[in-house]
Order: sequence, then structure tokens, then C-alpha cells
Amino acid sequence: MRNIRLIIEYDGTDFNGWQAQKRTSAQEYKRTSKKIRTIQEEIEKAAKKLLEEKISLSGASRTDSGVHAKAQSANFRTHSALPLYNIKSGLNSLLPRSIAIVSAKETTLKFHARFDSKSKIYKYAIVNRKPRSALLDRYAAHFSYDLNIPAMRKAAKHLIGKKDFRSFQTGNKEKDFVRTVKNIKIISKPPILEIYVHADGFLYNMVRNIAGTLMEVGRGRFKPETVKEILEKKRRASAGHTAPAKGLCLEKVFY
Amino acid sequence: MRNIRLIIEYDGTDFNGWQAQKRTSAQEYKRTSKKIRTIQEEIEKAAKKLLEEKISLSGASRTDSGVHAKAQSANFRTHSALPLYNIKSGLNSLLPRSIAIVSAKETTLKFHARFDSKSKIYKYAIVNRKPRSALLDRYAAHFSYDLNIPAMRKAAKHLIGKKDFRSFQTGNKEKDFVRTVKNIKIISKPPILEIYVHADGFLYNMVRNIAGTLMEVGRGRFKPETVKEILEKKRRASAGHTAPAKGLCLEKVFY
Repeated sequence: MRNIRLIIEYDGTDFNGWQAQKRTSAQEYKRTSKKIRTIQEEIEKAAKKLLEEKISLSGASRTDSGVHAKAQSANFRTHSALPLYNIKSGLNSLLPRSIAIVSAKETTLKFHARFDSKSKIYKYAIVNRKPRSALLDRYAAHFSYDLNIPAMRKAAKHLIGKKDFRSFQTGNKEKDFVRTVKNIKIISKPPILEIYVHADGFLYNMVRNIAGTLMEVGRGRFKPETVKEILEKKRRASAGHTAPAKGLCLEKVFY
Repeated sequence: MRNIRLIIEYDGTDFNGWQAQKRTSAQEYKRTSKKIRTIQEEIEKAAKKLLEEKISLSGASRTDSGVHAKAQSANFRTHSALPLYNIKSGLNSLLPRSIAIVSAKETTLKFHARFDSKSKIYKYAIVNRKPRSALLDRYAAHFSYDLNIPAMRKAAKHLIGKKDFRSFQTGNKEKDFVRTVKNIKIISKPPILEIYVHADGFLYNMVRNIAGTLMEVGRGRFKPETVKEILEKKRRASAGHTAPAKGLCLEKVFY
């Protein structure tokens, strides 16, 4: 038995997120439709074909529908003796162009891509100019109001540290809303603005809610200090909007 | 009568190039199919709806199927008195997300986007690493062999100046094969390599043939000096392959 760790890049536009879905037979029937496919399923399907064995893939992050990954980390166990290079290139020839295996390495049998991850970095990308962009449309949200970047950086400082992020999650699905945000970096490459959020864990929609709130600060609807008050209110409704999925990309997973 | 100049950005992946096509009625019937649409037609159709007048759009470059543009330049005449801002935003709401009007300005009645252009810059983008990239797949060619960039830069120098580029065109459609390449810049941002070609005019497939040839130099199949010999042979077959359309993007048009 071997445990294989994959680094996976994907364009999430045409997928229903990372995670395999349980479906009714009617939905299963429609699985060929683009909108219902998931990244995990596509890779498991390709691996089954390649390794002649059913594998179960664990991803570090269960990215949502429309969210991208530059370097998702995942692992699976296999009895196959196929060399690593052939696993990588074999999967790449079987997978659609919107999913790429960047690397395949053997790791200890104990390693679990999700439970062992120590922290992750997500990038949120915004096209900040009046007209929308055709070339960046798949990978960035469009925001046409002028953004005050120093104000956004000031606001972001309030979000760094070990805090209760209840105001920045959706659905109240967790028991524990405390996460540690290690860093938020805002990089301006006009017309693109990138917000990098590095944390030990993320609540549902957390980066998209942070991005939406920072955009409200940037356009002047919130003051930078308001972000501190929003945190203290521990109420989702107090923060800004949830920024669209397409601007979000999983950049790196740390172990 | 007004003459309106547009700057247009587009993702050419799903289009059959810039230029409107003459079609048989059977093809016309299938015009809704993505692969048969053209950028020019989409904009003319949107303008007709917006201005309630049939317009004829001239583009500086008739980009091929699958080729992108960051800043195509085009113009059309209209009797409409609609303010420029409304032309821009009106077209943007009517056009698909893969086409964006970046600016609309009024120009002299004489201005012609194609005949008046003095020079253009095209970018050719390559992902240079072993595995293919999912996120860059629409906008860059994949080349998995290591590229010797200094050798490519040395080779590119032979292509600068007023020369007969017969070896770097496809189809022998022109009478005059002499063009002036003002500059070729090769920028490395691993894993991306960008080749910028600035010339007063371009023969059919010229940038894609230059890119293909420079890649052959980069992987060591041609020496940099061979490019000089290729030029002198004035025979398409002597040069390298035609690099794929998706790596090509019209960056800027000068007047």
C-alpha cells in the first residue's frame, strides 16, 4: 500500500466545487452535464481508469462551486506500483484541460491532506476599473468603484490574530468560530487588486466575506475601524457582502 | 454623422476570430453555435440593438480563431447621438462576458482603425514547465522542454529590422513579404514566458511562426544563428512550427 500526495491546479468555473456529491439517480443520470461535475470525482474517475482500482481522494480544502486552485493538496492510497511520473502524466492525459496534476509524490501512510494541514493561503482577485475585463473575467470579481487601498490595508489589520470570525462566515455551520489569521496582504497591480489571506483554518465563505467587507471599506461605505466593530458584533449581517466565487483561488497549503 | 473608436478586449477561445464571415444559409442556421460566432459580428449585432441602426465595424487586426485581444482598436460610423458613456456601457451589457468594450471615443470622420494603424504589438505566452497548467490553459501554449532564454533572445535579434519574412508566414497570400519588426522582447516570469513582437505590419501567422521558431531555438533544435539562415531561405518550410493560436494576444495598436 502506498499513500500518494498530489498537488492539483484547477479552473473551477465549470465545476460544482471540489467535493463529490451524493446524488439521486435522476441527478446521476445528468452527471455528464458540466455544472454538476466536481473536481474530486473527475480525479477519482481518472485514477480508477489509470490504476484499475477505486481510490478515495482527500483534499485539504473543499473549495466551493466556481472557486479555483493553484495548488490544492490531496492524497489517496493505492495498491498500484505505477511509478509516480506515470501517475502524474497518466492522470493529466485522462483529466479535462481545466484540471492539472502539478506533482505526485509518495508520502507516509499516515499523512492526511485535510487533517494534517497547518494553514492555507487563499487569494481573492478583483478587477478594479470601470469597464469589466474579458480576459480576467473567469478569475477575478469586477468592482467598478474606486478603491482606497491604504484604507483597506488599515481595515485588514483588525482581522489579523486569533479571533472569533462569526461575522465573516455563512450558515452558522460550525461550533467553534475562532480562527487565527496569520496575515492579510493586499497587492495592487492595476487594474488587478489581490487580497491574500493566510490562516490556520477558514469558516464557510470566510475569505469571500472578508473580501466583500474590505471592498466596502475601499469604496468608503465602512471606515477601517468599523471592521473591528463588525468582529465584535459576531453577527454575519453586520459585515459586507459575500464576494463572488470566481475571484477566489486556493494558493498554498502548509503542513 | 459621428465616427466612434472603440478599444476592445476579448477572450477569443470560443470565437471563430475577429472577422464576420460570409456563410451559406445552412451555416447561418448554425450561427448560434459558439464555434462559428465572430467578435466583429457580436459587436455589430449589439450595436444594432443599442443604436437602432446597422453599423459596420473596422478592426485594426483581423485576429484568427482562438486569438485574444487586450486592446483591439476598431471604429464605426453612426447617426446616433447616444453619449459615449452610454455606448460603452450599453454595448457591455449586451455583449457576452468574453468581449468587453474598454473605451469608446469620438474621432475624426476620416479615421480608419485598420488603414491608419502605424504599428502593433502582439504578445505570445508560453507555460514552460513539465505539467500543463489548468489556470493558464486558455491564454498560453504549453511547452514542456526546458527553454534556453538567452539563446532565444540572441535568435530574436536576427528578426529585428526591415526584412523579407516569407519564411515566417503561412499561405503565401501577400505580394509583398517585407515588414519592419521594431522590437522583440522576451520576458520570463516562471513558469510563464512572454514574447512581445512590435512591427509595422504582420504577415499571416507571422507571430505564431516566430514564436514556434524561437521555441525550437530555446530547446536546442536550432542554433540562434540558424534564424538568420531561415530568413534568407525565404521558404516557410525552413522555419519552426506554427505555435497554437491560444497563446497569441493583440496587446496594442499604434497610430
